[in-house]
Amino acid sequence: MDKIGKYEFVAEPFHCDFSGRLFLGHLGNQMLNAADFHSTDRGFGMKYLMTINRSWVLSRLAIEMTEMPGQHERYLVETWVESAMRFFTSRNFRVTGSDGRVLGFGRSIWAMIDTETRQPTDIFSIDNGAIKNWIVADKPCPIEQSSRVKMTEKAGFVRSIDVNYNDIDINGHVNSVKYIEHTLDLWDIDWYREHRLKRFEIAYVAETHYGDRLSFYREQTAENECCVRLVKTEKQTGKEVEVCRCKLVF
Amino acid sequence: MDKIGKYEFVAEPFHCDFSGRLFLGHLGNQMLNAADFHSTDRGFGMKYLMTINRSWVLSRLAIEMTEMPGQHERYLVETWVESAMRFFTSRNFRVTGSDGRVLGFGRSIWAMIDTETRQPTDIFSIDNGAIKNWIVADKPCPIEQSSRVKMTEKAGFVRSIDVNYNDIDINGHVNSVKYIEHTLDLWDIDWYREHRLKRFEIAYVAETHYGDRLSFYREQTAENECCVRLVKTEKQTGKEVEVCRCKLVF
Repeated sequence: MDKIGKYEFVAEPFHCDFSGRLFLGHLGNQMLNAADFHSTDRGFGMKYLMTINRSWVLSRLAIEMTEMPGQHERYLVETWVESAMRFFTSRNFRVTGSDGRVLGFGRSIWAMIDTETRQPTDIFSIDNGAIKNWIVADKPCPIEQSSRVKMTEKAGFVRSIDVNYNDIDINGHVNSVKYIEHTLDLWDIDWYREHRLKRFEIAYVAETHYGDRLSFYREQTAENECCVRLVKTEKQTGKEVEVCRCKLVF
Repeated sequence: MDKIGKYEFVAEPFHCDFSGRLFLGHLGNQMLNAADFHSTDRGFGMKYLMTINRSWVLSRLAIEMTEMPGQHERYLVETWVESAMRFFTSRNFRVTGSDGRVLGFGRSIWAMIDTETRQPTDIFSIDNGAIKNWIVADKPCPIEQSSRVKMTEKAGFVRSIDVNYNDIDINGHVNSVKYIEHTLDLWDIDWYREHRLKRFEIAYVAETHYGDRLSFYREQTAENECCVRLVKTEKQTGKEVEVCRCKLVF
């Protein structure tokens, strides 16, 4: 089996924005689907891991696009494991259009946890480190790695939202894609008419549950660059906890 | 070509709710995709209609399920035209699971508009009424037709939300599926833990644009039956206009 997985998707009409281009959240979702297909076919997918009380947890995701697929366009997502360490593995993505032109790339970092203790576990313990057989170190992914998203206390409060039924996945948490969507919703359509999102980066810190309230703090960190901190207010304790940070480059 | 279109989809992990069942909004989206594939393959799809300044407009949608596809399950959506009149056509759906068991049905009513005047146009004017060649009148769709959703002034205000970037499709309107999702979000997870949504019905009345504010009014109309009225407050005029009504049977 090829070390690189290749999956075709279509930019569905209702998954495209006002400009007729695929929403970034839906592209992120298809990257995560591609990751799931790739790992399942090679013996270390979520479904198998569940049977041994393990699970992949997405820690970071960075997407950098020169162009988004247009409505009805078929596009390919390629994915491969770039490296694997005991507690983290990095998986890359390449997105190409129906005519083969390169649309963009993605980088992601994953940890593996014990689903009972929720603690990180040794990735190499799965099938004697079989993931090492799937590493592709030499396929180019010419975008920067995720960096630490640096924010100061100057970040301004933008809005709060309640976590709703449609935000929650089978694990009982807000799903990874919903954070992307809610963050992109902080900008209005007039902004998107005049600015193209070139890079989106997210670092996941903690999980959000139903009933929690999410607050968004935003800070302009460079020309055409903004960072967003998401903080949850826990329903039961009223405690405020950071759940993720995003960096957007327009 | 078969008069009935048959399309396979997968219940993706992030399209499933806390219970591991497909969200109704995503099922609705796939029904609309199936409608688009079916009509495109038979010469009266959106893409062709755009070239002659016509467009299908979804007027009503009813979905009745005995079971929702489970996470990772492949399911089939069949669709066919049940009847066609000058200004309305009715299209039905049947959803089956990977093992052939029937999961549920859908009914929809569509109008055709002139995209310049936004007025209804004669469906039979397309290719000399060719749609009549595709009618399947005898395939069972054993769920009730959409009825008028009757509500009184007793309906109580539940919440208001702003229309965001991710709500708006290429036509500049809130997309049909987003109304379904926002309506289902009025109930909390504890409710869904104890109640299964058996039937969902929506009648579209007016379009909502970016910047409008949506308010939700809810009324219990029978045991296990609720109706919801969505009203927009237009940004420019402050005017309140009804945009759709939903009926939910649990």
